[in-house]
Amino acid sequence: MRTKILGSAAGGGFPQWNCACRNCSGFRSGSLKARARTQAQVAVSTSATNWVLLNASPDLREQILAIPELAPSVDSKASPVSKIVLTSADVDSVMGLLHLREFQPLHIYCTSAVRRVLTEENSLFRVLNRSTPPAHWEILPLGRLSPLVAPSGPATKDGLFCKAIPLFGDFPDYVSDSLRRTLSQDEAVVGIQLFHKDKLFFFAPSLPGIGEQWRSVVDESDFALLDGTFWTDNELIAMKRGKKSARDMGHLPLSGVNGLLQHRFRPGKTRKVLIHINNSNPILNEDSPEHRQVLDAGFEIAYDGMEFNL
Amino acid sequence: MRTKILGSAAGGGFPQWNCACRNCSGFRSGSLKARARTQAQVAVSTSATNWVLLNASPDLREQILAIPELAPSVDSKASPVSKIVLTSADVDSVMGLLHLREFQPLHIYCTSAVRRVLTEENSLFRVLNRSTPPAHWEILPLGRLSPLVAPSGPATKDGLFCKAIPLFGDFPDYVSDSLRRTLSQDEAVVGIQLFHKDKLFFFAPSLPGIGEQWRSVVDESDFALLDGTFWTDNELIAMKRGKKSARDMGHLPLSGVNGLLQHRFRPGKTRKVLIHINNSNPILNEDSPEHRQVLDAGFEIAYDGMEFNL
Repeated sequence: MRTKILGSAAGGGFPQWNCACRNCSGFRSGSLKARARTQAQVAVSTSATNWVLLNASPDLREQILAIPELAPSVDSKASPVSKIVLTSADVDSVMGLLHLREFQPLHIYCTSAVRRVLTEENSLFRVLNRSTPPAHWEILPLGRLSPLVAPSGPATKDGLFCKAIPLFGDFPDYVSDSLRRTLSQDEAVVGIQLFHKDKLFFFAPSLPGIGEQWRSVVDESDFALLDGTFWTDNELIAMKRGKKSARDMGHLPLSGVNGLLQHRFRPGKTRKVLIHINNSNPILNEDSPEHRQVLDAGFEIAYDGMEFNL
Repeated sequence: MRTKILGSAAGGGFPQWNCACRNCSGFRSGSLKARARTQAQVAVSTSATNWVLLNASPDLREQILAIPELAPSVDSKASPVSKIVLTSADVDSVMGLLHLREFQPLHIYCTSAVRRVLTEENSLFRVLNRSTPPAHWEILPLGRLSPLVAPSGPATKDGLFCKAIPLFGDFPDYVSDSLRRTLSQDEAVVGIQLFHKDKLFFFAPSLPGIGEQWRSVVDESDFALLDGTFWTDNELIAMKRGKKSARDMGHLPLSGVNGLLQHRFRPGKTRKVLIHINNSNPILNEDSPEHRQVLDAGFEIAYDGMEFNL
């Protein structure tokens, strides 16, 4: 299983277009040792002709163009991208579906609630039905294995399967109250666990850190891409860039009491990499003590173009 | 009045992520003499602290980051971008509004019908209300002058004004039948005429070519950015990339009987530049006879980064 990080930042990317915080202005002036990052986007492959996207970022068009393996095949002229798995209905998880509107038959995997938010109160997504056949929505049940790529033969175990893990986050603020009342709250935010041969990969770019299940899923996985959005719980409030705490927005902060770095995971098993890093997060500064603290705690920090082989 | 072309391609951009047509595959292999183009996006300014966007392209985040003048001011930390004028509710005209969701108070100018499509059946756009104050929608009446930027003093004529010109196109296919029945068809697709001092600029990236008014607006303007989407009327059908003709999609083709190049405009007055060029259009190939024919007919071809001063 190959995994490519096409984008590693939280919503808005880094730098953020209208932000002049220490990170963003330091990056623009060249005084900060940091990499530019597009919004979080992951692509997974078990064969050259089949790439699965994890979420659909607002930057998806430029992200696909940057990766030659994702271009249409010179021989078949077909795109190797036709499957997308969504973890939530957040703008930075779903907006990129609209980049994929150009007559491409898509399979979109998500919870029933996320599908309903997109199709029942957002007519824009009907553009995905212009293709022949139209976009096919596949409902992911919570906690049960669903096939993404069929095995190459009856005796082989080279298929790709996924399981949606409820993470107990909230629906995005844009969802209407009337629709929200009819949705199952457990389906608002999920992590995606992928299974290929004997390897397990857990993807959780939004991790509220509620309950215990997410920790055991990290511990049983060989590779985990985890929520690195904020360093502190009051990060946006302190910068006057928002009114909500990290936890109110469904993101366990990295530092502080019960922050992600304080959790004790099973030693030696899981390669743990932070993704969905907000422009305000001091770990973007590679010279910062916070950056060093993350590495010392046994985590890596994702960057655009990073690649993993499992 | 400064005008910057941030993007010059039609929906999907060039190359298009899932397309292996002659242009797209020729570009990827390096055998085609052509420039990459992001989706059509224009920014207009009458002062360094105030840029107005014409439409909001799906590529808007990367387009803003590419232009240093559009970054937040080092002194005031404020973004010079806060006003957007929309010509239609097409995905490639409006999707970029979601890139601007990061706590930025916006003024969005469009017809009443376009506003209703976005706000009444697409809850996603409520994210624009996260800012303080929330996004303000300003309704553009057809054929009447509206102020975009106030003059610097009572005796000066340095303000920026705009007029919406009905172009008699159709609403996008994603709009529900029930909403469509309550909308004024004349408000579906407009051209935007901008007025600054004694200069007139006409922006019409979707030009169905219906009626006579659009021709007189071109003739009275000093500068016109016009629909260069398709070369022939059956371009997408012939390539098996769609089922509709150029005219069915609201785009007057460049060639053929009554194509844009056949129209006779007032000689010497208007600088005419083609924008919104589809990946299928042979004029993208700078060695092609079609590219030459456009230049010989007195038109220029927009590219990303092109700039005009009026």
